[in-house]
Amino acid sequence: ELADALNAMLTPPAKPLAGCQMTITAGPTREAIDPVRYISNYSSGKMGYALAQAAAKLGAQVSLISGPVHLATPAGCQRIDVSSTQQMYDAALRLAPKSDIFIACAAVADYRVAAVAEQKIKKSDEQMRLTLVRNPDIVAAVANLADKPFVVGFAAETQDVACYAKDKMQRKHLDMIAANDVSQPDSGFNVDDNALHVFWADGEQLLPRADKYQLAEQLMQLITTRYQHETN
Amino acid sequence: ELADALNAMLTPPAKPLAGCQMTITAGPTREAIDPVRYISNYSSGKMGYALAQAAAKLGAQVSLISGPVHLATPAGCQRIDVSSTQQMYDAALRLAPKSDIFIACAAVADYRVAAVAEQKIKKSDEQMRLTLVRNPDIVAAVANLADKPFVVGFAAETQDVACYAKDKMQRKHLDMIAANDVSQPDSGFNVDDNALHVFWADGEQLLPRADKYQLAEQLMQLITTRYQHETN
Repeated sequence: ELADALNAMLTPPAKPLAGCQMTITAGPTREAIDPVRYISNYSSGKMGYALAQAAAKLGAQVSLISGPVHLATPAGCQRIDVSSTQQMYDAALRLAPKSDIFIACAAVADYRVAAVAEQKIKKSDEQMRLTLVRNPDIVAAVANLADKPFVVGFAAETQDVACYAKDKMQRKHLDMIAANDVSQPDSGFNVDDNALHVFWADGEQLLPRADKYQLAEQLMQLITTRYQHETN
Repeated sequence: ELADALNAMLTPPAKPLAGCQMTITAGPTREAIDPVRYISNYSSGKMGYALAQAAAKLGAQVSLISGPVHLATPAGCQRIDVSSTQQMYDAALRLAPKSDIFIACAAVADYRVAAVAEQKIKKSDEQMRLTLVRNPDIVAAVANLADKPFVVGFAAETQDVACYAKDKMQRKHLDMIAANDVSQPDSGFNVDDNALHVFWADGEQLLPRADKYQLAEQLMQLITTRYQHETN
């Protein structure tokens, strides 16, 4: 009995993701307007960083492609810093073919400024028109790779959250999507708490409001289960 | 002799700004595009916060109007948090008439989005056009008050720095302007070191590269000297 108890205490925690290569994108991206101004969004990067930490704890080898955030790199994760969506795309498409699981948690800028000014734009006119062009779609590009990893996307919406999320999953050929309603003042972007509605081809699960780290652990368990189900 | 030495040790440091009401703006401002996206700039707020700390040390009563930054409020300063340029303008025009010195250190967004979208804009089109309209000019409005405080502006430029700075000072009726060249990778925005070229009606001084706190102390000494010169 003593031997059993000691054994249980000394047994390392289960590492269901041991040997699994995972790439996670996190944080916002920034699109330059000129040398001092940019377009960005309210993503704090907390969810992506919490997911990276949860994955490392389950034994995964994590590459964390991060936009500009004020967060410490989770232990055991390899962090790649980027600023623009194009830079994040380049890093993602380099790492994804070597990954078993790819999680697109970053809130990327969908559009970039068509012509970035080399010098600071002087405020001369009453109006200014900014022409924006579409950025490459990172998660769709990864999901369209010939030898694609298990791909998890996120949807941050302010209305018809479940409907938009399921449509996005099908349209972009994702394996899973985690949706949150960023219109709630106490959920979503740049807050510590969050709730997620997760969908996959033939199922869904609601992860109720919790702090982002608890939520990340639950989501990572769910991703692990679905990933093992798909690959076995 | 012992009495003199003790006296010197017990004498509090000089407080040349005792009784002086000072308002300082700091950090970037953010202009919403929709509930998740915004336009901002690379200002960290470090210079404005260092100036507030230096002013409090010299005895000033400091109100610090701050855009979104990741900095602790300096001891003894009253901090007013704002996000958009319009919010900063409202706070500044409320505090400036009660201030002896006003320092516009914030990097405000010169333009805001003409029509902020209530829901997240979906990425449907290849191009997107954003119409921006001019924001109110905070430092010019303060300098045009009937009972205006001593007004110090900043100029962050990427070319012809001295020329633009002096023109800005005259055009906006500022008492002083501190110019820095943000095109230098090791100076200006979001770095710890900086150098400033300071101008007033009949003089100028170069404050060589130093960490922002040392530089803020030197600039605050210079502001104090010029303020006392103007008001005596």
